[in-house]
Amino acid sequence: MAVLSSGKLTNLLRLADASGRFKMLAIDQRDSLRNALGNATRREPKDVTYEDMATTKALITEVLAPYATATLVDPIYGWPRAVKAIPGDVAMLVATEDTGYERAGTRGRKSRLVDGWSVAKAKRAGANAVKLLVYYNPDTSGEVLSHQQQLAQRVGEACVAEDLPFLLELVTYPTEEPSADTPEFARRRPRHTIESAREFSKGRYQVDILKLEFPGDLKYSREFHVGVFDGRERAPVYSLEEVQGYCREVDAAAQRPWVILSGGVDIKEFLANLDLAIDAGASGFLCGRAIWKDVVPRYPDLGAMRAYLTSAAAYNFVRANAVVERARPWFAHPSFVGWDEVRLADEGEQWYRRFGER
Amino acid sequence: MAVLSSGKLTNLLRLADASGRFKMLAIDQRDSLRNALGNATRREPKDVTYEDMATTKALITEVLAPYATATLVDPIYGWPRAVKAIPGDVAMLVATEDTGYERAGTRGRKSRLVDGWSVAKAKRAGANAVKLLVYYNPDTSGEVLSHQQQLAQRVGEACVAEDLPFLLELVTYPTEEPSADTPEFARRRPRHTIESAREFSKGRYQVDILKLEFPGDLKYSREFHVGVFDGRERAPVYSLEEVQGYCREVDAAAQRPWVILSGGVDIKEFLANLDLAIDAGASGFLCGRAIWKDVVPRYPDLGAMRAYLTSAAAYNFVRANAVVERARPWFAHPSFVGWDEVRLADEGEQWYRRFGER
Repeated sequence: MAVLSSGKLTNLLRLADASGRFKMLAIDQRDSLRNALGNATRREPKDVTYEDMATTKALITEVLAPYATATLVDPIYGWPRAVKAIPGDVAMLVATEDTGYERAGTRGRKSRLVDGWSVAKAKRAGANAVKLLVYYNPDTSGEVLSHQQQLAQRVGEACVAEDLPFLLELVTYPTEEPSADTPEFARRRPRHTIESAREFSKGRYQVDILKLEFPGDLKYSREFHVGVFDGRERAPVYSLEEVQGYCREVDAAAQRPWVILSGGVDIKEFLANLDLAIDAGASGFLCGRAIWKDVVPRYPDLGAMRAYLTSAAAYNFVRANAVVERARPWFAHPSFVGWDEVRLADEGEQWYRRFGER
Repeated sequence: MAVLSSGKLTNLLRLADASGRFKMLAIDQRDSLRNALGNATRREPKDVTYEDMATTKALITEVLAPYATATLVDPIYGWPRAVKAIPGDVAMLVATEDTGYERAGTRGRKSRLVDGWSVAKAKRAGANAVKLLVYYNPDTSGEVLSHQQQLAQRVGEACVAEDLPFLLELVTYPTEEPSADTPEFARRRPRHTIESAREFSKGRYQVDILKLEFPGDLKYSREFHVGVFDGRERAPVYSLEEVQGYCREVDAAAQRPWVILSGGVDIKEFLANLDLAIDAGASGFLCGRAIWKDVVPRYPDLGAMRAYLTSAAAYNFVRANAVVERARPWFAHPSFVGWDEVRLADEGEQWYRRFGER
């Protein structure tokens, strides 16, 4: 794994800062943004237009991308305007999965790709990496797990074929509980994240970066359960020390550099998550809503949105970036050993003749 | 031309600074570097090894690429080590032409591509643009001109097929004079550069950036002919004011954003060329030897080389960059009108379905 092909290595370097740390902005939300825009404008989600979505994304991208080392956009609403909104020294990732999922059984989730989009198109368009979100609850049926595994493997193969980094996002979901915000599901989270990280570190998926959930819900931790983050008290299910242990287990399970996602928690909780994940070995974040979600209720007042983004949201970003300054660089992950060990799969006098021959 | 495909626009933005100005380092020299390394080590050029070439290029790249918005490397000796030596926020261009040329008649030059390399491989490897050098003296035979035109057209088509910016470099050469350093050839230079810029601005070549010679030889100008640049006095053939007029003619002929090359002149002369070219409308430079050539005689003393690069060569670069701060941004070139006019060839709700379908 210290050996990378030219397209993978060149673009991995573009995703991170000069020290190999990821400070990445996510603005690829689709259904969740559509719902939030519906709430903001008192409309049904289905009445939110393409223009509503594209305008909101373009504004967020324009103001916040300069704080990022890379920005993740969706191919439908995001990419066309992001191309001009993202500075030339900020890399671009693009999503391949369709929003939502297909129901499998009562509660299983099967992910799908965006119809009409592809990894080859992403490469052609100038993307520096491809992202796939896979819903993955290790307790679901073998048939659902196998579907999700095959999807990840397929995108991994396409990324190798196009010589583009593959970032795989793993998100669990409740199957036995009525919602994710329950003590029972909070209790399950760490194991789900750890097992998912282990599964998708296998060579067959050809993942370059894992995008993982925080392995636990700090709102259910003994130290924060009294409503520290959102004012609501919950039953505690673990201690902070136990959660730190889960973070270390994630790091041991992840045989690839990994970054943390926000899952839409508030910024205060995200910064706490980030802090613990970085301590355990994460190489940064790929975060959207925790940084900018409070801008959406201001739609369609573009002036108020810009004012919020340039002040509070930018401050959120800067604080997250500050935490990442002590993160482990991706090339210092055990799978790479260190910078001096990173090298191209093919070098020497004849490399350009052999390169890309399949 | 204000309308660009996604891969072209995304990567054009990466080549320039945030204001649209090109500060680009060239380290793709092959035969000229081989000769210089032979001189430095008292060997025949043929005895200069792959390692000599690759080591020299890697060291220059490592020290100087951080000053550049983009770095041009050759695919053979340069690319494999440049991938790790170039910072993630500096773009990469790669050459497609083979070094040297094939003799056509007594004095004609026909360019060739690197055998075993291609635009498709460049895209796959992670290049942000492809460069082609074409020797072009408009006074040579129709057969030679046609060969060179067809080569440029072929690479232009391949760049469209791969959705990658195409930078075309045009270099003239003496056919009737014993050397390029004669009053007669100095006299011809302006017309050669102007006519070449006009020819290769035609739509059939699909060029995105022209890399042009300075349209004149200031060592033969009335103001500098007494040996201002190299201590050698020459017969003057034009005034500075006339040369400024040639620069304006180049700008009028170039229907694409253009940058200036150094052709290995000394830094003092290059800065004078750059100053005049920028005044006339150039959008920056793609310069190699004028910045770093004095490092080569120090080979193989890597310590002395590094000392030279981090002091004198870096200073050369910084001075050139300072001149470019007042250059016309590429998107302000008349062919683009301005930033607000630049847009993607395909936008809207269904763009991702249509994109890349051929």
